[in-house]
Amino acid sequence: MSLIDDLTWRYATKKMNGQVVPQEKLDYILEAARLAPSSSGLQPYKIFVITDKEKLEQIKEFSFNQSQIIDCSHLLVFAAWDGYSKERINEVFVRTARERGLPDNAMEEYQNRLWEMYEPLGNEWHRIHTAKQSYIAFGLAIAAAAEQKVDATPMEGFDPVKMDELLGLSELGLKSTVILPLGYRAEEGDWLQNLKKTRTSKEKFVTEIA
Amino acid sequence: MSLIDDLTWRYATKKMNGQVVPQEKLDYILEAARLAPSSSGLQPYKIFVITDKEKLEQIKEFSFNQSQIIDCSHLLVFAAWDGYSKERINEVFVRTARERGLPDNAMEEYQNRLWEMYEPLGNEWHRIHTAKQSYIAFGLAIAAAAEQKVDATPMEGFDPVKMDELLGLSELGLKSTVILPLGYRAEEGDWLQNLKKTRTSKEKFVTEIA
Repeated sequence: MSLIDDLTWRYATKKMNGQVVPQEKLDYILEAARLAPSSSGLQPYKIFVITDKEKLEQIKEFSFNQSQIIDCSHLLVFAAWDGYSKERINEVFVRTARERGLPDNAMEEYQNRLWEMYEPLGNEWHRIHTAKQSYIAFGLAIAAAAEQKVDATPMEGFDPVKMDELLGLSELGLKSTVILPLGYRAEEGDWLQNLKKTRTSKEKFVTEIA
Repeated sequence: MSLIDDLTWRYATKKMNGQVVPQEKLDYILEAARLAPSSSGLQPYKIFVITDKEKLEQIKEFSFNQSQIIDCSHLLVFAAWDGYSKERINEVFVRTARERGLPDNAMEEYQNRLWEMYEPLGNEWHRIHTAKQSYIAFGLAIAAAAEQKVDATPMEGFDPVKMDELLGLSELGLKSTVILPLGYRAEEGDWLQNLKKTRTSKEKFVTEIA
């Protein structure tokens, strides 16, 4: 199976059957997200894996009551940094240098230039930027789930303020961005399951400038 | 090869050798991006494939002079809608309905609710939202390139205003978001090629709430 086969197989599952995703498949999906590229390698996001039934019930309530939230096996909540800071950036560069057997300040010049660029852009710009990065990891998690024949429903339809409160994200300097229930499609009750996958045509999607 | 193998193989190539990516591999990468999921299936973005040498030289000038811009085989420029409108949304839903053999107004209720939600959020919110969607497709194009053993460099470091001008994107109701040079790594001159890939640890990346 190729990535294209996997992407053709998947769809935004509307009804899941409660079956549990094996740990090794879950780990695989999380690993794909962890390996995602991000701007300057900062990975300004984390993933919360929710299986607590009570929390899932609460999340469902502020997520348009979508049934996948409770019928999934694991709910992934992507959360991005609520802003860049010199300290956060430094931590990443020091870790990177150490893993590469380089002195802690090996990338100091680049790091300083980065912060000089980011600081004046302000906190709102930061938040948009970190959120965007999390969407790359989100895309790769979706691809990894499809490869593992695990169903997944990409979702933005939840109240991020309530999510942040429920998971205590503010204290961690994070803001929820997107969520991804993982599980298996129910045989019945999914209105989308048997409808043709549709996309804009290649002709409209791609423009060549040669 | 699995997605994880592909993601481990890839890196943000810093020096490309000018070798041309075969058309079928390019098409494959674009197809992965076309199949990406997006909010309500709107696919509020397009891809421009640039091979025009003069344009690439101009792009390099406002992209920190990064050499991949001219040493790549094809430069993908992702561009997102500069806002949602009732007409843009309607066009997608009508096409979708027709492809599914349904009446044009099959999703009218959903479509109206969507526009009622989007309209008051305003144009700046729209632009952030469409840009985010383009990052999912961007992630899948990166994965597809890696699967095809085509090197790629995810890049945000360019002047989007100059890019929009050069490609006439405003007239098309689009704004450039990210770019992806596709090509092949040079044997020499790439400082990153032989450095260890580093990522935040799984322990720091994932939090379980069970």
